[in-house]
Amino acid sequence: MNPPIVRALRAIVGDAGLVVDETRRIPYECDGLAFERQKPRLVLLPGNTEEALGCMRILHEEGIPIVARGAGTGLTGGATPVEGGVVVGTARMRRVLEINVQDRYARAEAGLVNLDLSRACADDGLMYAPDPSSQMACTIGGNVANNSGGPHCFKYGNTSRHVLGLKIVTPEGELLDLSRPETDPEGLDLVGLFVGSEGMFGLATEVTVRLLPAPENVETVLAIFPDLDDACDAVSEIIAERWDPSALEILDRLTIQAVEASIYAAGYPAEADAVLLIEIEGSRAECDANYNGISAVLDRHRVIEARRAQTEQERKKLWAGRKGAYGAMGRIAPDLYVSDVVVPRTKLRELVRKSTEICSEYGLKLTNVFHAGDGNLHPNLSYDRRDSDELKRVLAAGDEIMEAVIAAGGTLSGEHGVGLEKRDQMPMYFSQPDLDIMLAVRAAWDQQQRMNPGKLLPIRACNEHMPFKGLNR
Amino acid sequence: MNPPIVRALRAIVGDAGLVVDETRRIPYECDGLAFERQKPRLVLLPGNTEEALGCMRILHEEGIPIVARGAGTGLTGGATPVEGGVVVGTARMRRVLEINVQDRYARAEAGLVNLDLSRACADDGLMYAPDPSSQMACTIGGNVANNSGGPHCFKYGNTSRHVLGLKIVTPEGELLDLSRPETDPEGLDLVGLFVGSEGMFGLATEVTVRLLPAPENVETVLAIFPDLDDACDAVSEIIAERWDPSALEILDRLTIQAVEASIYAAGYPAEADAVLLIEIEGSRAECDANYNGISAVLDRHRVIEARRAQTEQERKKLWAGRKGAYGAMGRIAPDLYVSDVVVPRTKLRELVRKSTEICSEYGLKLTNVFHAGDGNLHPNLSYDRRDSDELKRVLAAGDEIMEAVIAAGGTLSGEHGVGLEKRDQMPMYFSQPDLDIMLAVRAAWDQQQRMNPGKLLPIRACNEHMPFKGLNR
Repeated sequence: MNPPIVRALRAIVGDAGLVVDETRRIPYECDGLAFERQKPRLVLLPGNTEEALGCMRILHEEGIPIVARGAGTGLTGGATPVEGGVVVGTARMRRVLEINVQDRYARAEAGLVNLDLSRACADDGLMYAPDPSSQMACTIGGNVANNSGGPHCFKYGNTSRHVLGLKIVTPEGELLDLSRPETDPEGLDLVGLFVGSEGMFGLATEVTVRLLPAPENVETVLAIFPDLDDACDAVSEIIAERWDPSALEILDRLTIQAVEASIYAAGYPAEADAVLLIEIEGSRAECDANYNGISAVLDRHRVIEARRAQTEQERKKLWAGRKGAYGAMGRIAPDLYVSDVVVPRTKLRELVRKSTEICSEYGLKLTNVFHAGDGNLHPNLSYDRRDSDELKRVLAAGDEIMEAVIAAGGTLSGEHGVGLEKRDQMPMYFSQPDLDIMLAVRAAWDQQQRMNPGKLLPIRACNEHMPFKGLNR
Repeated sequence: MNPPIVRALRAIVGDAGLVVDETRRIPYECDGLAFERQKPRLVLLPGNTEEALGCMRILHEEGIPIVARGAGTGLTGGATPVEGGVVVGTARMRRVLEINVQDRYARAEAGLVNLDLSRACADDGLMYAPDPSSQMACTIGGNVANNSGGPHCFKYGNTSRHVLGLKIVTPEGELLDLSRPETDPEGLDLVGLFVGSEGMFGLATEVTVRLLPAPENVETVLAIFPDLDDACDAVSEIIAERWDPSALEILDRLTIQAVEASIYAAGYPAEADAVLLIEIEGSRAECDANYNGISAVLDRHRVIEARRAQTEQERKKLWAGRKGAYGAMGRIAPDLYVSDVVVPRTKLRELVRKSTEICSEYGLKLTNVFHAGDGNLHPNLSYDRRDSDELKRVLAAGDEIMEAVIAAGGTLSGEHGVGLEKRDQMPMYFSQPDLDIMLAVRAAWDQQQRMNPGKLLPIRACNEHMPFKGLNR
């Protein structure tokens, strides 16, 4: 990148805020979507909103494309600079700015790690509800970009239900201070619109979120089933009977085997075809009522065993298998393609079966770890990206699974966003008028379409179809 | 309006869908903001989405301004056709289209009355949470336009948290079918953006909403206080102590007097300076725990009496005063200017006092009925619109109250929208860059700005400041 520009940027962010060296730029060439890579021309790590404003102004003057990046834990290629340009990361903006106990909100810099926010308010008996599986690494800003979910979002809702305000640096380098904690939007809901916009409207530097009272008691039950169908049916019935669990997570047989062979071994019996992890929260009375009601449902669905944790340590042990599942899959193959779709709960069985069939046709290993409560399936395809034929089969299988999901009344994505991965599948779900409005709304924020170009929308303004040689399609 | 156009429209909606006669158009010249009136050139009442599409196409070809209208219960002039044009009402679209018990959602036409939706799913043990005080008349579509609230939105959140999908007719007469029940938005959140857009993006003809399980038990307690401050402090402490009421409503002395003098008389003692209406929901155990905890708080705040309803009939009686309050105010003066602002809960006392001072300076009668739980104040100024001097004082006092609210960290509107009433106050709250993005987003939906012109945004595109002789300003 030409030296005067680099000098001008260095003058704003200092050496610590600039990654110029080519090898040091390698980590920024992709996110969790491992097979799409593109090295950014430069990486900027502003230390605060002021520095971000300065950088964005210069990049605007120079007409340079910008890709915002949190921790890079995204799974759809949202943080991959496919069209080059500059990556602006939030790694140096991770301060908690305010915890307001009385009015129950927090203000934090966008680079704050999700789990650190809940830690910061734990002593006040409060919590931040959205808990992506990557919460030990992912950032609040990244969660905003993707409207991220997590196991407990079944009860509490995804990120969009918890963001009360934002400080946004526009593509032109102007500041929108919408950071006041508004439980209901004023005027047009710019904050709500920004959540889930995948870095295409600007750079969020501060996030104001709702905090919730931490539950009095949290109980965890691990139910082991001889058949995945039984686990799925139990989930539907628990909800139909109006019991009120805070999380309902299912792991399938292949996942269990990977977990049992790993350091996360949780002692699941060999005959287990599926395990269902159930969390219950509330007063003692509520927990007991829910536990008893849910146990009765489990019994009706041939549960082999239901383990109720008696101590916090036992609770953590029951969760260990779930939290370690993705790590454990490294034993199956070096790479993992994690899909993310939502289907009506009543169709969980059918779609898990269908995905399994599709993958076996392609000779691929499929594992299922999913948020059963809200019908959020994660078909995980293990592969080795050095095997280009296997990669082709993974992508073809992924497409077929998506077609089956949408045919069953499901949706394109549940909590990971669209990014690159599903960009060209958007027309499977949205009509041209839908997409045209999205394009126009994007242009309202970013006339030049410099923010995260090539993501989310399959076409540019004026319906020019985008060249896309990625994903081997 | 020129006959060929009227003929073309009649051919689509039939005689029942057309209001041409001048006297029959009078009811459409304003909504609940009584002092701004303008007769529409024509009123259209399409019977379904198809008819709405046909009408919108013709109006687009003719470049005629359009104002959407539900029941006309809005309080900010949002449905008043200030710039003339055609009113498109939803009065003939009030069918419930689907109640899905298993996946807990409903699809309804936009003209369905709010309360009728909850009635339609009551037998399935479900409910639609947002409950505006006008719920016996206001429509789901109107609720979407204004992101309406209600007493129970303290617990459940305003309309935007419950809308899962929409069928939208664009200003050009194109259909956006976003009516699938999505618990989390796909791509850019067009549905979330449309909620609260006050009829400026198009006409919603179908609404898909989340249904919630109706609570096992509902308890109502009426607490009578010798001093409004005590009532406000009790509310703050109930929440600080983490009790979980579903509604916290306060009525002040003047309101109590009006209620007691009316057919809604609830037998409030003469020494009552404020009453606090508390609702509790949940299992028997939860209700008892909350009742006991909340009672202890009330005692600490000098409550004169706390009445706990023992029967459904008693419950209704306790609510009667609250629900009848606005009707009762008709005894104070013929017209009522209902303001709507939100302040931090901890500042309720201060702002109620301040509003009272301001109104007494202007020699105006102020009543306060408010959603104390979420700090949503409703300063109600009684007046007679035939007295132009009194009207001037009402508007001046309204402005001063707004300035005080914003100075205290409050917001412009809580649940009634911006409409005409607060349009010119938007710059008190939003910066020019904020407003510019809102304008651009509006243009993304409605390039010609034909939908509800003159509302919400104080400026048109290209920063042309709008002529606004209304509100005597």
